[in-house]
Amino acid sequence: MVKIDPGRLMADLKRLRGFGATGPGVVRLALSPVDLASREWLVERMTAAGLDARIDGVGTVFGRSRNSGPALLIGSHTDTQPTGGWLDGALGVMYGIEIARALAENDATRHLAVDVASWIDEEGTFSSLLGSRSFIGDPVDESIRGATNRQGERLEDVLKAAGLAGRPRAHFEAGRQVAYLEPHIEQGGRLEAVGKSIGVVTTIVGLRDVRVRFTGQRNHAGTTPMAIRRDAGAALVAFITRMDDAFRQIADADTVWTVGRIDLDPGAMSVVPGAADMYLQFRDANVARLGAMEQKLVEMVRDFNAQHAVSVELQALDEPIDPVGMDAALAEHIARAAEAVAPGQWLRMPSGAAHDAQLIARCMPACMMFVPSIGGVSHDFVEDTAEEHIVLGCQVAATAAASILLKASADE
Amino acid sequence: MVKIDPGRLMADLKRLRGFGATGPGVVRLALSPVDLASREWLVERMTAAGLDARIDGVGTVFGRSRNSGPALLIGSHTDTQPTGGWLDGALGVMYGIEIARALAENDATRHLAVDVASWIDEEGTFSSLLGSRSFIGDPVDESIRGATNRQGERLEDVLKAAGLAGRPRAHFEAGRQVAYLEPHIEQGGRLEAVGKSIGVVTTIVGLRDVRVRFTGQRNHAGTTPMAIRRDAGAALVAFITRMDDAFRQIADADTVWTVGRIDLDPGAMSVVPGAADMYLQFRDANVARLGAMEQKLVEMVRDFNAQHAVSVELQALDEPIDPVGMDAALAEHIARAAEAVAPGQWLRMPSGAAHDAQLIARCMPACMMFVPSIGGVSHDFVEDTAEEHIVLGCQVAATAAASILLKASADE
Repeated sequence: MVKIDPGRLMADLKRLRGFGATGPGVVRLALSPVDLASREWLVERMTAAGLDARIDGVGTVFGRSRNSGPALLIGSHTDTQPTGGWLDGALGVMYGIEIARALAENDATRHLAVDVASWIDEEGTFSSLLGSRSFIGDPVDESIRGATNRQGERLEDVLKAAGLAGRPRAHFEAGRQVAYLEPHIEQGGRLEAVGKSIGVVTTIVGLRDVRVRFTGQRNHAGTTPMAIRRDAGAALVAFITRMDDAFRQIADADTVWTVGRIDLDPGAMSVVPGAADMYLQFRDANVARLGAMEQKLVEMVRDFNAQHAVSVELQALDEPIDPVGMDAALAEHIARAAEAVAPGQWLRMPSGAAHDAQLIARCMPACMMFVPSIGGVSHDFVEDTAEEHIVLGCQVAATAAASILLKASADE
Repeated sequence: MVKIDPGRLMADLKRLRGFGATGPGVVRLALSPVDLASREWLVERMTAAGLDARIDGVGTVFGRSRNSGPALLIGSHTDTQPTGGWLDGALGVMYGIEIARALAENDATRHLAVDVASWIDEEGTFSSLLGSRSFIGDPVDESIRGATNRQGERLEDVLKAAGLAGRPRAHFEAGRQVAYLEPHIEQGGRLEAVGKSIGVVTTIVGLRDVRVRFTGQRNHAGTTPMAIRRDAGAALVAFITRMDDAFRQIADADTVWTVGRIDLDPGAMSVVPGAADMYLQFRDANVARLGAMEQKLVEMVRDFNAQHAVSVELQALDEPIDPVGMDAALAEHIARAAEAVAPGQWLRMPSGAAHDAQLIARCMPACMMFVPSIGGVSHDFVEDTAEEHIVLGCQVAATAAASILLKASADE
């Protein structure tokens, strides 16, 4: 069996953490000076691992194996949220480099091709999932022209200043890359809750972002009797209560919905709110269930408008994101590897978060695997995973990678 | 019967509107240059009405009748909210001046003493109800030292710059002022809803301002199953629903409660809120009912904490304001005057808004009367009252004033 080197893996992960380390966490926003420095370092590490590595025209670090195909592409992202954890994304990229090294050190796997990618801007500092979108051939030039970060810097200018704007961009090579593997931290607490070490991802859930706007009548909170009020905030509360009941009828155990933000207007103690907005997100692995939830919202809005003095309006905030199924054959390779390395310590589960894999899946079979997040915490400086799980996850991924590539070679 | 002069009243109201007119509304923040200019003009109008008038050491315009007592004090305020209506407060002050003139023009009432006040800063640009607090002998110097407006200007500096800081302050004169009358716009929609023209105020309601804070666990909105969430926003919605049910059991038709503001933290689409605040205000004319509502909140918080994974904490935001009953004998004078001037067109009602009268009531019998607000709108540029109602209200107030003073003279 291919053996990864735990010490080498941990040392590289900790070196990467050094780029932007902030307390226990990391601030490494896409294309910031510290992120660009980390990308130069990634190129060095990939080169040392035997890959032909470079930063591409959008900022993705791409390391191409010098072996001929079929190739397994392993990747994730090394940019972070404004208050990022040290492993989110970074884990999958460093797994890729370690797996390339481990396979090269084993006579039975030395000939296999592993390409490694750190996709730029998964977290959306400028434009979410930019690197993977560019790789699969989405037209990203318009995104690049329009995108700015929170400080108002233009992505176009930042790419120019970094000397990247004119470079070639990494693209999917048909006939070479036969599968994509993205290892990642779970970012939730399911594995920990049931005491498992590896999650084999079945589906990346789809999601809908909507705003529900309530329009009533602003009034004096002292002089306006309850009976004649058109209180937009009270209507919002009533709507959420009904919606929770309705969604519980539709949901399964994996369905989630969240009201993450509520704005009452004008938002003063002595004023009956005349307008109110709720921002709702719901996610599910099943596109039919997402559709049923949308349909239920439309019905609720219609019924509410028929019954209430406060009017309600529903607005989609983003393009709907549909669930993306992971490749079943690849998942089976991971499941067998997990069972071999850590018998009984794995389970199949959906990914509740979005990942580059949902885009890469458009051009080749793709799969993901998770390691546990301590306390389920992510997008926070204190995000962490037990070292035992980090090492175990890499061994499972390496075993699966060898299995996937040996099967692909045999099939040729 | 004393007769007011409708043309003179309306002309003066419109002249006052000219100080700070903004579209149909008025911006005349306490002690702003335009407010100070309007106070000089008020002194002129009061002087022309025969009063001994001046701006006092806090900015209140006080016009003292040259007749000997017993005196009826008529007043309200001429400062406005940042988006003020033209009649809120101004109406009562101009009624006072018109009534002083009307009584002086009638042989039967010429000897009666009407003092008129425009209390400074009822609306709280610097310090709410400052003028009436100063008049009743509250120690206001500390308020004056600590108060600033939204622009950070210090009240102390503004009073100095206006040349007011060293002036004497108007104070209640025991043995002279025997009653206080404050006419005001209703600021609500009750009179309009039942087609009445005059409200005789029975009580100024008390109020409580509280914050209810929910503390749960911030989490990823995709990866955290509903079953293990500690969603502070969902807890807030559940709490409000229970509270509405509980308050409905306690309330009468005049009880009001308002959640005017809700803050979810961090307030993002993809994040389960870890903390949430609701700002609640409730008002009632009955202090026992206010106490029962407070007690119910305390019980609900206790029960919620016992049952929920999200913790709840209740905090009073201001000193409680208890209801203030208006003087029944004075109310009877107004009711008789209303019945004489506009038979069947009046009703008794509480004031849901706070007024200077609730403070003046601490040192002498006080009463209020309302005229209808079109659409119940106040604290808005479009606030208005039908001219017919403005004139009718002044005639009722003048008739009541004569009645109160003749009775007081007879009682001496």
